[in-house]
Amino acid sequence: MNNNLFVYNTLSRSKERFVPIHLNHAGMYVCGPTVYGDAHLGHARPAITFDLVFRYLLYLGYKVRYVRNITDVGHLENDADEGEDKIAKKARLEELEPMEVVQYFTDRYHDNIDRLNVKKPSIEPRASGHMIEQINMIREIFDAGFAYESNGSVYFDVEKYNKTNHYGILSGRVLEDLLSNTRDLESQDEKRNSFDFALWKKAQPEHIMRWPSPWSDGFPGWHLECSAMSSKYLGEQFDIHGGGMDLLFPHHESEIAQSTVCFHKAPARYWMHNNMITINGQKMGKSLGNFITLDELFAGTHHALEQAYSPMTIRFFILQAHYRSPLDFGNEALQAAEKGFNKLMKAMETLEKLVPGADSTSDIATLEAKCYEAMNDDFNSPIVIANLFEGVRIINSVYDKKESLTGADLEKLKALFKSFIIDILGLLPETDPTAGIQLVDDLMQVILEIRKNARTNKDWATSDKIRDELARVKISVKDTKDGASWSIE
Amino acid sequence: MNNNLFVYNTLSRSKERFVPIHLNHAGMYVCGPTVYGDAHLGHARPAITFDLVFRYLLYLGYKVRYVRNITDVGHLENDADEGEDKIAKKARLEELEPMEVVQYFTDRYHDNIDRLNVKKPSIEPRASGHMIEQINMIREIFDAGFAYESNGSVYFDVEKYNKTNHYGILSGRVLEDLLSNTRDLESQDEKRNSFDFALWKKAQPEHIMRWPSPWSDGFPGWHLECSAMSSKYLGEQFDIHGGGMDLLFPHHESEIAQSTVCFHKAPARYWMHNNMITINGQKMGKSLGNFITLDELFAGTHHALEQAYSPMTIRFFILQAHYRSPLDFGNEALQAAEKGFNKLMKAMETLEKLVPGADSTSDIATLEAKCYEAMNDDFNSPIVIANLFEGVRIINSVYDKKESLTGADLEKLKALFKSFIIDILGLLPETDPTAGIQLVDDLMQVILEIRKNARTNKDWATSDKIRDELARVKISVKDTKDGASWSIE
Repeated sequence: MNNNLFVYNTLSRSKERFVPIHLNHAGMYVCGPTVYGDAHLGHARPAITFDLVFRYLLYLGYKVRYVRNITDVGHLENDADEGEDKIAKKARLEELEPMEVVQYFTDRYHDNIDRLNVKKPSIEPRASGHMIEQINMIREIFDAGFAYESNGSVYFDVEKYNKTNHYGILSGRVLEDLLSNTRDLESQDEKRNSFDFALWKKAQPEHIMRWPSPWSDGFPGWHLECSAMSSKYLGEQFDIHGGGMDLLFPHHESEIAQSTVCFHKAPARYWMHNNMITINGQKMGKSLGNFITLDELFAGTHHALEQAYSPMTIRFFILQAHYRSPLDFGNEALQAAEKGFNKLMKAMETLEKLVPGADSTSDIATLEAKCYEAMNDDFNSPIVIANLFEGVRIINSVYDKKESLTGADLEKLKALFKSFIIDILGLLPETDPTAGIQLVDDLMQVILEIRKNARTNKDWATSDKIRDELARVKISVKDTKDGASWSIE
Repeated sequence: MNNNLFVYNTLSRSKERFVPIHLNHAGMYVCGPTVYGDAHLGHARPAITFDLVFRYLLYLGYKVRYVRNITDVGHLENDADEGEDKIAKKARLEELEPMEVVQYFTDRYHDNIDRLNVKKPSIEPRASGHMIEQINMIREIFDAGFAYESNGSVYFDVEKYNKTNHYGILSGRVLEDLLSNTRDLESQDEKRNSFDFALWKKAQPEHIMRWPSPWSDGFPGWHLECSAMSSKYLGEQFDIHGGGMDLLFPHHESEIAQSTVCFHKAPARYWMHNNMITINGQKMGKSLGNFITLDELFAGTHHALEQAYSPMTIRFFILQAHYRSPLDFGNEALQAAEKGFNKLMKAMETLEKLVPGADSTSDIATLEAKCYEAMNDDFNSPIVIANLFEGVRIINSVYDKKESLTGADLEKLKALFKSFIIDILGLLPETDPTAGIQLVDDLMQVILEIRKNARTNKDWATSDKIRDELARVKISVKDTKDGASWSIE
């Protein structure tokens, strides 16, 4: 087992050697989508980032349990939001059962993410499917004295928690600063402090998504589901917790508080956060109205798009940036990614055609070492890709007979490309199912043109030869008054 | 809205006009898979049968809510089985978390069923996600006096229920007969009568799938989940309940008993049951060891298979029999289905090429009426297919100029084929993504052969023409010592 993997831990703000809790096993929890709308570019990034982590851990030989949840209980958008249940809202608008909306968008999310060649997680639990676990966790927090009930809702007492713990350990926020800024609560608020977060919300009469609880018919607060499901499937403490940077505060900070109260330890050892995708420097998001759905990207149907971008182009585009760097969206960048991806795929084809030489003019072993080095350095995919392009250069030079590789080095390069491109980066050659059909049509036009030519020149031998050769591949040609037509037998 | 649809109701043992509870809406619940193994031919039949029902109801304009559950809590295989939790057993064997096994087989089930072009249901709830609902239902049955606790487990008191209700209303079984046969219970049994069924089972120490309840840490009985989830998403009474004939007793019979106690009415108005698939007359099943998985069918890798059978061949094979008839599996039958399906698809292509005539020699309106008539007669897909083949005969005759159709009739026939083949039967042309590529290769060999010929004959004009024409479609030819090779630019 490779023990040179270093992971940037948001908790310590430094790269740390990855040492799993259980030898050869890795447990990873990543915050998944809230399924009340279509997945957009902003969803693709965490999915692909943690797919890269999942794939590399598997590649290194770890037995990985990767849990990525589905948030199907409408959650509080932010703590200032007074409990508006988004999914229920959408369902009421559409006069649908909320779970029907949830199913619809979950299925669409899966379709989109599958096309991006994101491996399915080991377990994909749903918040709505873990009510008992969430209610039990609230009970424990209550019994420990860190929760209070107000009007049928239950809140986590952040100020009390912070007296013996550090609320802000992950995000670096200082509660005292928050306290002084937000002390004046509006009178109707149920919370003692504005930064207290809901563990349970009493459902308003119009709320159609609700479950019974000791406090009220209602629904759990959003931060709770991840604590309940990660501990259920990965244990009270596990290796990696991932998610987008936007979830760092208050979501992950609150997860830590909840788990610390219940289990007396931090839930995860390594906290990983992918950076955001921006559009012209602006954050992408539903509320900003500038988000492009993955379907629109794949089909090229959004007004900001100059063309359609294939799933592999998007995957390559995302992997070309390190996951902790911001990534700005633009047609130019995506078109460059498309070119780069095609170049890489073409080189993989060329690689298969290379013939071994007597000696090697390039050092493949060093190239391989650099690829591992980059992955071990906090999953540095852009450096891996840069090294693979050095491989592309070598491949093309060998093909053009400007360089040469021994048989052993050729095999090493093939293995390297397969491992890093297919297995680790998860990039696959894209076959356009209509491309072959279009080309068949084109080639038949070529053949019929030559046949017409031959017949015009009364070159019956060629014309007959064409007919016989086509018959051999089961294509028949029929002459009509509108010209020749062909069909497959 | 078509109100001529007749559905065979297992409850009344007769065909009844379909009258939905809510105008223009249809609610349907179908028992889905238990996800502890790969889907086989026996899973394909209910999936396709109720997909046909779903599609036809949608086609008729109903707003359909179709709920098909995932049984992810290991259930009692039969009531003689003393509570062995199958999923937990598999998980222990593989040293996996049960939900990891569940996720794995759920994902594989979806992949298989998607390939069969089965539409996703509106809601696909999981048994494990509805513990609160199930526990509440047990409480109600308890409070009504129809359940008893024994050793931490809870059983439904069938004998008591039968005094005021009819346990056997669906299956036609007579409890008195059962009583006299099974009165002598083994002493260690927790049940008062052998036909009593579990509502809640106390988990044995080795059971890793368990939830807290007022009676014990344990898991719900299998019959309960369908009652809890169907009532949650479709209401206390809904239109159609479907499933395989093997689920009729005791599963559906017990569902009726549970719902009758809780809601004082029968859960569903129409009970539909598909017949079984047999292999050489024998029931197919995991326990018999003669089941062929869908993956094996698609790939042709089971020893009983002479070839691979495509998803559409299997779908067509299943639709060629009425859902209430038994269907015997065999290579010959599947090969005949493959031929039939291909003939139908080819006719759809030919249909597009037909030119309108001055009059019609066939009566398309009658053909259309016959298709509707067949679907309205309890979803009689084999009769629909027979009528479509009359359409195929007409298409081929018109193509061969032996018959003719007016433009209006041609359009009617096109609409009929599209509606019934694509929308209702859910059959799609299958495109083999490698077929185009193979043909491109074949055609290039044809072209290179002609080119070689021309060059041998010093026919430079033809040889140049070929080069120019290929360049036009962006193919370049390179002459090497091993002959000509080509590549796409």
